[in-house]
Amino acid sequence: MALLIAVKGWDTQTWVARLKARFPDRDIRSWPNAVGNPADIRYALTWKAPARVLSDCPNMELVFSLGAGVDHLLGQDDLPKVPIVRVVDPDLTARMSEWIALQVLLHHRQHLAYAAQQRERVWRELEQPSAGDLRVGILGLGVLGADAADVLKRLGFNVAGWSRSKKTLEGIDSFAGDAEFDAFLARTDVLVNLLPLTAETRGLVDRSVLEKLARDGVLGGPVFINAGRGGSHVEADLVAALNDGTLKAASLDVFETEPLSPDSPLWACENAILTPHVAADSDPEAISDYIAAQILRFEADGTLDNRVDPARGY
Amino acid sequence: MALLIAVKGWDTQTWVARLKARFPDRDIRSWPNAVGNPADIRYALTWKAPARVLSDCPNMELVFSLGAGVDHLLGQDDLPKVPIVRVVDPDLTARMSEWIALQVLLHHRQHLAYAAQQRERVWRELEQPSAGDLRVGILGLGVLGADAADVLKRLGFNVAGWSRSKKTLEGIDSFAGDAEFDAFLARTDVLVNLLPLTAETRGLVDRSVLEKLARDGVLGGPVFINAGRGGSHVEADLVAALNDGTLKAASLDVFETEPLSPDSPLWACENAILTPHVAADSDPEAISDYIAAQILRFEADGTLDNRVDPARGY
Repeated sequence: MALLIAVKGWDTQTWVARLKARFPDRDIRSWPNAVGNPADIRYALTWKAPARVLSDCPNMELVFSLGAGVDHLLGQDDLPKVPIVRVVDPDLTARMSEWIALQVLLHHRQHLAYAAQQRERVWRELEQPSAGDLRVGILGLGVLGADAADVLKRLGFNVAGWSRSKKTLEGIDSFAGDAEFDAFLARTDVLVNLLPLTAETRGLVDRSVLEKLARDGVLGGPVFINAGRGGSHVEADLVAALNDGTLKAASLDVFETEPLSPDSPLWACENAILTPHVAADSDPEAISDYIAAQILRFEADGTLDNRVDPARGY
Repeated sequence: MALLIAVKGWDTQTWVARLKARFPDRDIRSWPNAVGNPADIRYALTWKAPARVLSDCPNMELVFSLGAGVDHLLGQDDLPKVPIVRVVDPDLTARMSEWIALQVLLHHRQHLAYAAQQRERVWRELEQPSAGDLRVGILGLGVLGADAADVLKRLGFNVAGWSRSKKTLEGIDSFAGDAEFDAFLARTDVLVNLLPLTAETRGLVDRSVLEKLARDGVLGGPVFINAGRGGSHVEADLVAALNDGTLKAASLDVFETEPLSPDSPLWACENAILTPHVAADSDPEAISDYIAAQILRFEADGTLDNRVDPARGY
C-alpha cells in the first residue's frame, strides 16, 4: 500500500523526503517517473497534476490537494471517485490575513499617494479618515475569510462578509446569497475576494459588480483586492475600471493567467498593487504534518477534516 | 473664570468654536489676540505656544497639551506650576497602531522589493518567512506601545517591548531599564520607537544602537520604524546605516526637523519609507470631548487622567 506524490511546480523529491520523514516505513512513490504499479497506491498528494494520474489507480482511497484551492483538480475530467481533502493550515490562514491586512492598510493610509510625494520630496499631510469609517466587504467567509475579518475588525475597520449561507461572526455583518449581494456591494468601500473558484464564481467580479460598490466612501472611490483566484475577476473590466475611475485602486495577487504576461496592461496601472501569487504560500512542513495526521486518523476511525464537495466546488 | 486657547499650527478660531460648542456659557479666550486679563484664566489648551503665555496667568489651574507628546511644552522654560494633562484618545491610539502595523507588514511582506519588481513587470516569488519568525521590539510600552504590541501579536509577530519599568502584557516579552536594553536590541529584527521625547531619549537611537540590533533575522538585516519623535533618533546615523547596510530599511514618520527639508539625504534612500508626521493625527472633536469631560470631573472631584510628570518628561 503506497502513497503517491503527484505535483507540478514543486520539487517532487523534496515532497517525497518530507513524507518519508513522517512515514519512514511506508512506500512513497512519485509521478511521473516512479509510480510503479498503480494498483498499489492508496493515497495521493497532488498539486496541478492531471487527475487522470489519480483515477488510474484502482485502489485509491484518499486524495490530498496541497493547497486551500482545489480548482486545479475539480476543473478536470477523470476526477477520482474518492474523498478529496484540501489543506487548511493555520500558517497559511495567518499569511493570507497578513497580506489582506497589509493591502487594506496600504489603501486606507494612502500609501500610494505618500510614496508619490516621497519621490517628489513633498511634505504634505493628506486628510485621513478613521478605520471605523472604512467599510470592508469580504467575499467568502470560510476559514480564510473569517480570520481576515477578525484581523480587520481588530484594526478597527467596519467589516462585513458575503457567503453562500449566512454566517454568525461577532462584530461582522453577514450577507448571504444572491438576494443580498447587491446590498452587500452597496455598503462596501473595499471589496476583498477570498471565494474559491467554482462554476458559480468564475468571472463574478466584472464591471457590473464594480459599478455597484459604494462611491460615497471615505477613500473617494472603491478598491478591489483579490487574494482568492484570478478566474473570479474579469481582468479586462478591472483594467478599464482602474483607468476610468470606476475603481480608485486595486491590489491583486491572483490573475486570470499566471504568471501575468509582461504585456498585461495591469502592470501599467499606477493605482494597482500587484504581487505574484504570494499572499499565502503553503508551508510544506506544516502541510506535511497536517497530511500525516489526517492519514493516521483516517486509518484509525475513518474521519477526515476539510473534505471537498466536488458538486459545490470547494 | 476663562479658558484660553493657545495653539500654533492649528486654526485658533476653530478650536474656540469647538470649546464653545461644549461650554456655551463659559468665557473662551484665545492667544495671541484675545487673551484679555490674564488673571481671569483658569484653564488652557495649548499646542506649541510659548509656555510663558501660560505662566503669565496667575490663576491658572490646569493646562491641557493637545496631543500625546508634551515635549513641545516641557522643553521650554517658564513652565506653569500647575497640572499638565496630555491627550490620550482611543482614536489616536488606533491610528498609531494602524500606521505601525502597516509599516511592519510592508517590511515583513517585502513590499519595496515587490513594488520594484512590479515597475519592471517581473513575476518572481520571494521567500517569505512566517510572522512568528519576525521579532518586533517596541521602545515604549505606554498606552500607544501596548496597543501596537497587541495588534502586532494578533498578526502573529513575535513581540517584545522595552520601557523604563517592567510591564506585564500577555504574550509580550517585557524588557526594562538600562540593564536590559542591549538584550532587548539583540533579540529585535524590527525596532519600533514610540518613546516620548525627554532628556533621556533625545538622540537615543544612534549608530551604536542600530549596530546592536539582530543581524541574523529573517529579513536579512534590521529595520527601524519611528512614529514617536524625530528627536529620539540621530538622522545622520540613520542615513549612513541605510546606505551602508547596517539597516535593511526604515519607516519614518517623524524627523529631527519638521517639515523634513527637501535637501535631506533621507528622501534619496530607496530603502526608507517616509510619511509627513501623519501616523496618528489627533481628531480635534475627540480631543475636545476628552478635555471637556476632564474639566467637568476636575471641578467635581479634583481628579485628572494622564497627568504629566514634568521631571520624568511625559
